[in-house]
Amino acid sequence: MCRWAAWSGAPKYIEELIRDPQHSLIHQSRNAFSCKTPVNADGFGLAWYDSREEPCVYKDVRPAWADANLQQLAHHVRSPLFLAHIRASTGTATNQDNCHPFTFGRWCFMHNGQVGGYSAIRKQLDGMIPDRLYGHRTGGTDSEALFLIAVGHGLEHDPVGAMARAVQEVEEVSLANGKGPHMRFAASWSDGCHLFAGRYASDDRAPSLYYRSFSDGTSVVSEPLDDALDSWVEVRASSVIQITDGSVEECPFLPKLSSAA
Amino acid sequence: MCRWAAWSGAPKYIEELIRDPQHSLIHQSRNAFSCKTPVNADGFGLAWYDSREEPCVYKDVRPAWADANLQQLAHHVRSPLFLAHIRASTGTATNQDNCHPFTFGRWCFMHNGQVGGYSAIRKQLDGMIPDRLYGHRTGGTDSEALFLIAVGHGLEHDPVGAMARAVQEVEEVSLANGKGPHMRFAASWSDGCHLFAGRYASDDRAPSLYYRSFSDGTSVVSEPLDDALDSWVEVRASSVIQITDGSVEECPFLPKLSSAA
Amino acid sequence: MCRWAAWSGAPKYIEELIRDPQHSLIHQSRNAFSCKTPVNADGFGLAWYDSREEPCVYKDVRPAWADANLQQLAHHVRSPLFLAHIRASTGTATNQDNCHPFTFGRWCFMHNGQVGGYSAIRKQLDGMIPDRLYGHRTGGTDSEALFLIAVGHGLEHDPVGAMARAVQEVEEVSLANGKGPHMRFAASWSDGCHLFAGRYASDDRAPSLYYRSFSDGTSVVSEPLDDALDSWVEVRASSVIQITDGSVEECPFLPKLSSAA
Amino acid sequence: MCRWAAWSGAPKYIEELIRDPQHSLIHQSRNAFSCKTPVNADGFGLAWYDSREEPCVYKDVRPAWADANLQQLAHHVRSPLFLAHIRASTGTATNQDNCHPFTFGRWCFMHNGQVGGYSAIRKQLDGMIPDRLYGHRTGGTDSEALFLIAVGHGLEHDPVGAMARAVQEVEEVSLANGKGPHMRFAASWSDGCHLFAGRYASDDRAPSLYYRSFSDGTSVVSEPLDDALDSWVEVRASSVIQITDGSVEECPFLPKLSSAA
Repeated sequence: MCRWAAWSGAPKYIEELIRDPQHSLIHQSRNAFSCKTPVNADGFGLAWYDSREEPCVYKDVRPAWADANLQQLAHHVRSPLFLAHIRASTGTATNQDNCHPFTFGRWCFMHNGQVGGYSAIRKQLDGMIPDRLYGHRTGGTDSEALFLIAVGHGLEHDPVGAMARAVQEVEEVSLANGKGPHMRFAASWSDGCHLFAGRYASDDRAPSLYYRSFSDGTSVVSEPLDDALDSWVEVRASSVIQITDGSVEECPFLPKLSSAA
Repeated sequence: MCRWAAWSGAPKYIEELIRDPQHSLIHQSRNAFSCKTPVNADGFGLAWYDSREEPCVYKDVRPAWADANLQQLAHHVRSPLFLAHIRASTGTATNQDNCHPFTFGRWCFMHNGQVGGYSAIRKQLDGMIPDRLYGHRTGGTDSEALFLIAVGHGLEHDPVGAMARAVQEVEEVSLANGKGPHMRFAASWSDGCHLFAGRYASDDRAPSLYYRSFSDGTSVVSEPLDDALDSWVEVRASSVIQITDGSVEECPFLPKLSSAA
Repeated sequence: MCRWAAWSGAPKYIEELIRDPQHSLIHQSRNAFSCKTPVNADGFGLAWYDSREEPCVYKDVRPAWADANLQQLAHHVRSPLFLAHIRASTGTATNQDNCHPFTFGRWCFMHNGQVGGYSAIRKQLDGMIPDRLYGHRTGGTDSEALFLIAVGHGLEHDPVGAMARAVQEVEEVSLANGKGPHMRFAASWSDGCHLFAGRYASDDRAPSLYYRSFSDGTSVVSEPLDDALDSWVEVRASSVIQITDGSVEECPFLPKLSSAA
Repeated sequence: MCRWAAWSGAPKYIEELIRDPQHSLIHQSRNAFSCKTPVNADGFGLAWYDSREEPCVYKDVRPAWADANLQQLAHHVRSPLFLAHIRASTGTATNQDNCHPFTFGRWCFMHNGQVGGYSAIRKQLDGMIPDRLYGHRTGGTDSEALFLIAVGHGLEHDPVGAMARAVQEVEEVSLANGKGPHMRFAASWSDGCHLFAGRYASDDRAPSLYYRSFSDGTSVVSEPLDDALDSWVEVRASSVIQITDGSVEECPFLPKLSSAA
């Protein structure tokens, strides 16, 4: 499982989220709490929005705590919307192309979770990526396949619905030919204006997902960045939040498939 | 285009092929002659056979001339059969998983050339990899797809025929949906006992392929390693050589498809 | 020898200097003209100034043309003053800590050239770095030693004089215990406000140094970025230029030591 | 603090020490017990002896568990004497040149521990490296300085005495100008015939050091590789062991300086 954090609001230095907090993302790369894998050191990725339309992406396979470039960028880059991800591989190789966030045009996506029996159904999932998008498949992870399938379902025009259909379809493939747990999903995606984050699982163990509202913006995270636990709102399973201009809206996400909460 | 060299014979230090010769593989990584791309610095790979059944593989994306590990290994490892490859990417990413040689069980494979219009037909080629082999697809290159398709055609039992069928099928996909030049192929593959090398192209510009016999073995290369050009035998287009116990046997390889020489 | 380029003026995307020009720095990494070493692929470095006082630094040992992070950053980062450097090692190892630019507080420094007989005098040069600065010695290059010696001579208060004294002292050590050519120096350094570039050699072969004035700023380079050769002004040997608010001022730099031009 | 393991005896696959045991070195890279730093992922190094006189060295900065090359080499390389080290940086940079083991000719050296106040006394330690050896200083660690100082004291002819003098001298510099704990030392060194391992500290907290005798050789480790704790012999503080042809001899090591055990 992986750890991630995102920000939407006033421009913020990236290090304010990933390095400075008591329980920052870089700290979590060695000592994650709400996570089966305490060490998350199989790659790091950062996507931030600036004056260009598409996000700027930085990825590397060094552990986050030892990456001088990452520390420089986190100290210098200030952005109103950014996503950061540390990876703990669930099987696929440790290389840059397997690091999150993945991007397509203005959109980026990062994920914590897994698709059950992925190695057995990977070819089937690859086949579900539309031809025109296949060239964007740079690595071999389940997360990237999920993202490109969602793009194929019209993520750009229906960010929540397309993602829900992708998660559902992939879950069905896992139910048919993979193995349990079939779908574990806590992910965030954005086009630079809106920030989305969804939580879902086939069983009753959806990966954790929290957000916290500040006067100048909102953090969305896979686990709280500090001990002020009252300040962090847990997103319920089978829910998705959308953050736009400082307001957080929560909606159902695949509620029928999931009877768990 | 890439550069490569292989050895079959008495145990030889790898550096005797890739570093010591006047025009060694490491030298070629900066200054290749018979090649459109003089700089081949998008990754290096080495596969050698030893007391284990499967080959030992070392890959890295640093330029060959700057890789201290490669220099150490080439100085210390002595093997009766090894393959070495320097990559010049034709489009896919520079990462370890895209470096040759690729392996499957006892078999390894390295390639110089390209599949025309690969980005447009990559999904189709991926679909031609049998399900049971799909998990061995670690990177995103045309070369690796070609190899796994050949494995699917029974490379282990019919090393030349299966490779020929794979090359032919992939060429047909390029003819149908890709673009020219449809197939350029100079490749070497081995199971640790026999060393194969084939040369083929859809047009009359098959990538160069040479071998040279020494008292203690045979070198097979994408271009001669020294200026003793008379000593290097050019393999004809639409031919394949098989080297076993010091004898070199040349046979036709896809002769009907190719009218060129 | 290395290749480098710097910009001072209106905010510019870094790619406008290092990727877009006909003969950009990334192009030079494979095909440098005015240079003994056509391939410069032993590491890349970037330092740019933004809202922080100190520059942001990005370094990597991958060849510049294959570094996805570099391409992302160059496309997204816009800065009024930045330095970019591609390295061709003259002996020391290819690692991130040996990549230019080197930094100290607000200051950064990059260099093309060499100190003659460096391996024999490296310990002596290390001894010339003041104690308080020794912790900033991160790698093992002659260039970094030169920079820290200049910092020790008061670079922050006398940017040209301190650099001249450092170059002179190091040259004297090479004259005494090293070997010729004793000093080859084409370097650029900056505090984020002023951009300096100096050219000097013990012999008559000072490394090339050019600048070009545009309506919105000035480029300083180790070789012209395009074929409009008339537009590029060659800095004379034993000269230093200072660029401040768009004006370029040229002064002598170690003129007595050098009788060559 | 770092973790390490060494083998002297019949030829053994490296993975039998670093991957297969219940509490192997690769396992320790995520979960070390007898160690302040549970994650040791700031680089890996391997040195083994074969038919060449000097050891073959492989180093990389990827975490050990994610390094495909390391897994290949550990599976294929069989050697009668090898050293393996995983690094947890105590301050200096994560790069290949800072990874252990360090080598000089036939000799190699790896270390767990630290020199107190190293950043303040690094220049002084560098000055203690003889001129003729200074070119072998490739990185910036205290461990490498210690090793080269020991080489300067005649390690090749007096492996225990020279190391003791180096440790003592460096400790004295730390006592004078560094800070406590002044010296923590659990190290192993070898010329390919004899394997040495010493344990020492200025205070009573010498880093742990164990060995275990098997029918075909001896393992020396920074912490036991399995739960058969009775089988592992703890080397006492202020002691050094020498392993030659299967016999382990223990001697005092700096006994006067240390009153602790």
